[in-house]
Amino acid sequence: MQPIKVLFHVSEQEVWPKAVVNIENYLKDVEKDTVEIEVVANAGAVVTYFNAEKKELLDRMANLSADGVRFTACRNALKANGLAEEALPSFAKPIPAGITEIVNRQNEGFIYIKP
Amino acid sequence: MQPIKVLFHVSEQEVWPKAVVNIENYLKDVEKDTVEIEVVANAGAVVTYFNAEKKELLDRMANLSADGVRFTACRNALKANGLAEEALPSFAKPIPAGITEIVNRQNEGFIYIKP
Amino acid sequence: MQPIKVLFHVSEQEVWPKAVVNIENYLKDVEKDTVEIEVVANAGAVVTYFNAEKKELLDRMANLSADGVRFTACRNALKANGLAEEALPSFAKPIPAGITEIVNRQNEGFIYIKP
Repeated sequence: MQPIKVLFHVSEQEVWPKAVVNIENYLKDVEKDTVEIEVVANAGAVVTYFNAEKKELLDRMANLSADGVRFTACRNALKANGLAEEALPSFAKPIPAGITEIVNRQNEGFIYIKP
Repeated sequence: MQPIKVLFHVSEQEVWPKAVVNIENYLKDVEKDTVEIEVVANAGAVVTYFNAEKKELLDRMANLSADGVRFTACRNALKANGLAEEALPSFAKPIPAGITEIVNRQNEGFIYIKP
Repeated sequence: MQPIKVLFHVSEQEVWPKAVVNIENYLKDVEKDTVEIEVVANAGAVVTYFNAEKKELLDRMANLSADGVRFTACRNALKANGLAEEALPSFAKPIPAGITEIVNRQNEGFIYIKP
């Protein structure tokens, strides 16, 4: 059976706690190997990846990543915020452009959710 | 003919007035029996259902409900906010998990809108 | 080949800068004639079209419009904000109702993005 593919779009720092709870709860509700989850972070949301004060939140993201959730960071947003992709936490992967990723993923059948 | 299915996702208290106006205007614009509308409230948005100071807004939701709009409340969000689902207004129905509902509804052909 | 159709939904004034950057970056990333982009502005977002203090932002929207991006303004929102559609900048077109437009466009295959 095809996995259910879900894309979470996070574009603001303040939305991360809500997004992380959303995904944690969703994973409690489904069989992990029946879903494919990607988080596209663009605009200001990429800053949180580098925020040491958000350690508890970043740890929960790392746990979700260990459960198979893909976290991404828009390169345009990294550049606009003067952030080096080499300094991203290991669970977050840079992608060339957030909107392009969202468009491509929806074209591949991902369901779009904005937390 | 198949009805048009539309899902409104509300995740913040502040967004309710906008969401309610959106749905009121949409229903003025279409034949009521050609659409199927569901509102999924999760995260902080569920708190508004219990806010007596929002009576005017809740009355308008009740009116929309009488016109066939389904209002839901994510149980995870109710629990996280210490709210008892028995105390929900009669027009709002608890659902096990907001994100699961949004995924399932989109899989059934619902169009996603975040007001 | 069919163009990729993308709809950006903007419902708050504060979101415009993010939306405009999103579209500018997206257009750098794709061949212009392979995409069809529409921006649906409803609720408070329509006010920005009339805000002389946002000239730099409006100029960038006008440039995007010259590149083929369609900017729209929900008539319900214009009315609710006491704004005359005749005074819209020439690049922005009034539409009867924002939500109806979003529903119809998604039904036509547009991908939904909320910046």
